[in-house]
Amino acid sequence: MNESLTNQTSLTSGQLIVCHVFVNTTTVASCLHRPLTAHTAAVMRENDESEIIEHHDDEEMEKTRTPRNHAHSFLESVTSSEKDGYRSTQSSHRLLAYSDALISIIATVMILPVAHTKFQDNEELKQSIQALLTTKVAVYLMTFLIVTVAWAAHIRLFQVIQRIDDTLALLNLACMMLITFLPYTFSLMATFPSNTFGILLFCACVMVIGLIQAMIVLYGFSHPFFLSDQIQMSENQAYYKRRILEVIMRVPIMCLFASIFSFIYIQLSYIILALVIFLPYISQCLKWIWSKAIGGLVEDSPDSVPFYTYHPSEPLSKERVEAFSDGVYAIVATLLILDICKDNVPDPSVVKKEFDGKLLVALQEYGPEYLAYFGSFATVGLLWFVHHSLFLYVTKATRLMGLFNTFSLAFVGGLPLAYQLTHEFPRGSLNELEAVQISCVIIFFAGLFQLAMWVTALFTERETLHPYVRYGGREHAFMLAKLSVYPCVALGTFVFSCILSRFSTSIFHMMEIGVPFAFILLRLLVRVVLAAIRWLFCPARNDLDIVPVEEEDSQLPINDIVT
Amino acid sequence: MNESLTNQTSLTSGQLIVCHVFVNTTTVASCLHRPLTAHTAAVMRENDESEIIEHHDDEEMEKTRTPRNHAHSFLESVTSSEKDGYRSTQSSHRLLAYSDALISIIATVMILPVAHTKFQDNEELKQSIQALLTTKVAVYLMTFLIVTVAWAAHIRLFQVIQRIDDTLALLNLACMMLITFLPYTFSLMATFPSNTFGILLFCACVMVIGLIQAMIVLYGFSHPFFLSDQIQMSENQAYYKRRILEVIMRVPIMCLFASIFSFIYIQLSYIILALVIFLPYISQCLKWIWSKAIGGLVEDSPDSVPFYTYHPSEPLSKERVEAFSDGVYAIVATLLILDICKDNVPDPSVVKKEFDGKLLVALQEYGPEYLAYFGSFATVGLLWFVHHSLFLYVTKATRLMGLFNTFSLAFVGGLPLAYQLTHEFPRGSLNELEAVQISCVIIFFAGLFQLAMWVTALFTERETLHPYVRYGGREHAFMLAKLSVYPCVALGTFVFSCILSRFSTSIFHMMEIGVPFAFILLRLLVRVVLAAIRWLFCPARNDLDIVPVEEEDSQLPINDIVT
Repeated sequence: MNESLTNQTSLTSGQLIVCHVFVNTTTVASCLHRPLTAHTAAVMRENDESEIIEHHDDEEMEKTRTPRNHAHSFLESVTSSEKDGYRSTQSSHRLLAYSDALISIIATVMILPVAHTKFQDNEELKQSIQALLTTKVAVYLMTFLIVTVAWAAHIRLFQVIQRIDDTLALLNLACMMLITFLPYTFSLMATFPSNTFGILLFCACVMVIGLIQAMIVLYGFSHPFFLSDQIQMSENQAYYKRRILEVIMRVPIMCLFASIFSFIYIQLSYIILALVIFLPYISQCLKWIWSKAIGGLVEDSPDSVPFYTYHPSEPLSKERVEAFSDGVYAIVATLLILDICKDNVPDPSVVKKEFDGKLLVALQEYGPEYLAYFGSFATVGLLWFVHHSLFLYVTKATRLMGLFNTFSLAFVGGLPLAYQLTHEFPRGSLNELEAVQISCVIIFFAGLFQLAMWVTALFTERETLHPYVRYGGREHAFMLAKLSVYPCVALGTFVFSCILSRFSTSIFHMMEIGVPFAFILLRLLVRVVLAAIRWLFCPARNDLDIVPVEEEDSQLPINDIVT
Repeated sequence: MNESLTNQTSLTSGQLIVCHVFVNTTTVASCLHRPLTAHTAAVMRENDESEIIEHHDDEEMEKTRTPRNHAHSFLESVTSSEKDGYRSTQSSHRLLAYSDALISIIATVMILPVAHTKFQDNEELKQSIQALLTTKVAVYLMTFLIVTVAWAAHIRLFQVIQRIDDTLALLNLACMMLITFLPYTFSLMATFPSNTFGILLFCACVMVIGLIQAMIVLYGFSHPFFLSDQIQMSENQAYYKRRILEVIMRVPIMCLFASIFSFIYIQLSYIILALVIFLPYISQCLKWIWSKAIGGLVEDSPDSVPFYTYHPSEPLSKERVEAFSDGVYAIVATLLILDICKDNVPDPSVVKKEFDGKLLVALQEYGPEYLAYFGSFATVGLLWFVHHSLFLYVTKATRLMGLFNTFSLAFVGGLPLAYQLTHEFPRGSLNELEAVQISCVIIFFAGLFQLAMWVTALFTERETLHPYVRYGGREHAFMLAKLSVYPCVALGTFVFSCILSRFSTSIFHMMEIGVPFAFILLRLLVRVVLAAIRWLFCPARNDLDIVPVEEEDSQLPINDIVT
């Protein structure tokens, strides 16, 4: 014992630093966790060198191999592109954040043409406007759906390729360019449904995207240090590569067929395209029903490629789901002010003529629009807040949760339409009532799918949720309350606006402005309600809110100084 | 010595965990850094519970204090809001990402009204259109500048407040709502420059934002576990609080004066507002000139508040600069397709009448616009790529770099205007030449300010840059080449379009489409050029490219079991 101590001290005096971290706690996981994260976060902020993945060992070895032979090493570095690629390897983090931002904006921005359709109380024009509106809504929904599918494929791809270099970054940008072009092909398809050009253009884009993704995969597998550690370690790399290429090329090949069939019978190609999107879900549904009906579990082969199973519980990068959702919520909140700035600044000449140059009087006309703006912004902001609160406690996002998230976001993207509708029509008209009801429906479904996400997560709560919000957890009731505020309020407003149809807009605006206060007081309200329920129904059983804290404690390796 | 050891071992057998980290290295900072980050990153990925900052110790203590007294503990938890807040503490990461997304979109989206101004070759209308355009450009630039200032203030605030709870999240959303409303006040100011209402509305918004930020600070300091570790540890909390509140309230108070003066002499209030923005920079400039002229260094007092110094080398959160830039690049890239979808889908009736229902022929009209779209997307994408490459090697972002980044982004935001201009005018007109030249100027400055960022970083390269891109570093020449591609090419295109004015648009489009290939071949080109230079000028000195690699190598922690 004495010897070891002496040994240690002598090393310290040399170059050794001994860090003793004494942590006194019962839960080992949190013990290891806290000091490290707090510390490392500080270090990382100071010094962000961690993004460039370094290979000092490699360099060291090179140095020892060719000591001071610089001319040779220079030539070598020019020729050996392999080593060069290895050196310029980067973390893919920011590339993915940028892609998420691009894709989320592209998915949402197509609501603008919908929202900007001018409505009139003219019965003659109504029919043609409604046809136009249907087209535009169709374009928006198609864009949102297909772009989200492309995004899911992008997630899957970059779960395999986890490090990048300049070439991969440029290939990814090319891919993004084509994805942002997709909405235009939908516009063509929706405007000229019987013309083959739109569908051909779409198929061409998808095929090129597929080819680029295949190139990314091939490039990644030819430089294995780009791959995820799991695949890098595996011996089945060739099998993985083939399997992933098969999955990726499936869609472009179906698009090829769709484009060929478009010359023969155009309806058929639309059906093929619909199949492309829903096939994974349909096959999974059938599998699930089959397994429930027959009882025999249809298991995937054990050596199937991770991330490419299309299973509903397949993990989806939680970070990227958050980044994508943030993008959608941010763009929706911002589109509103664009309209305000464009339409609600009166013309100086008009102000001079009609209002004697009195700006304030001229602006009073727009009163309801400001109200609608603040109400809509509050709604978007609070829906983001609910999403944020939920994902704080989500530990793993699954594909099914991602699907519900997409649906929720598609409705959130419809909110600018709700804004446009609720201030467009004259007070008390029938259109106004319709507008308010459409808005309520949009908000209701946006909230409901958020709730559905949580319910889905609860089914596999051990994997997907933090203990606090699991059934019986400390924050369970509060989370439920947070998630159900918007569906309940929207439903209530819908019913009230039916009964008191004359005051529908006022009710709607009061709802939008009142909800933030509900959120501020929510924790208190939940407490009071819970206490009341407990006091009324089960005064004897006071242990309802006690969490069955799981004993997840694992003993950590303890470096004993052996005597 | 022996005694202490025994003491330690006895504790270990109880509840104590002893972590020995043996690190053998010369640089202590890097030693602490690498092994920990690698480890923690792995832990964080596996188990994302880290976002909820837990306080198990606290819970444990509570449990032991009130063993099995549930009714009491329940009541207690209702009343003690202090403990409650402590429990619901969250990481602020996602809140900041969402704020960055919102602010970046708001800053950029005001370019849309500028880009959508219709130009005509009509001389009579030209004057009024130019006046309108100037107004809109002024609104865009003011919005971009002020919103960026608000963003910098937001960064500073949340460098002090590093953890949040629901209340802070809601307060921040309220703050965001008012920030997104600012562009409207600028629109009013620019349209009615002599009316007091615009300036009053702006001042009111700024004052309310200031109040909300003050509330955030007060709330943060009343719950010290929200604060940054540095301030949390400090004994001067009261001083810090007062100092930060002073800095935050400075702007609202100046706005109060501006709004009062607006009734007396409106020009004065505009001057006050301009002062608000530039005062920190002016005072810093004067200080710097003073210190250079007199020689005596004007040092800040040693106990000044971190993050609130306004010094040019004040650190700026690198993450947030990246997130903000990503947002701007993403929204700019996406705004383009919105125009394509709106304007370039022909009306079905027109196609039927004028083109015999031949869609392809009808679409051929739009040929140049597609080219302009792909060219502009490539430009935005590659400017992002350059920014990304630069920030991979930036270890610390400073305020001055942030300023240059803002200028660069303001020009990037002007790219939709460039797109609109380059396909608007008939071939060969004088307007076309002007449009191409304006586009070149926009691209030139966007690239130049990126280069300026790097040059700024080089002045303090030890702190701000990774060794690879420092002077003489391995990637130095390559980085220089990457950053100077766009300024050089834009300058070249400008000169060529002056000489060959008839082909200006073709030259411009060829430039936009050729640059991506230049980037693909850039590494090779740089190698060849470097080799040529070396071979020509200094064949003897082959050691130019040898990096003075710092010996940062650290031996990994070795957990020896000492015998």
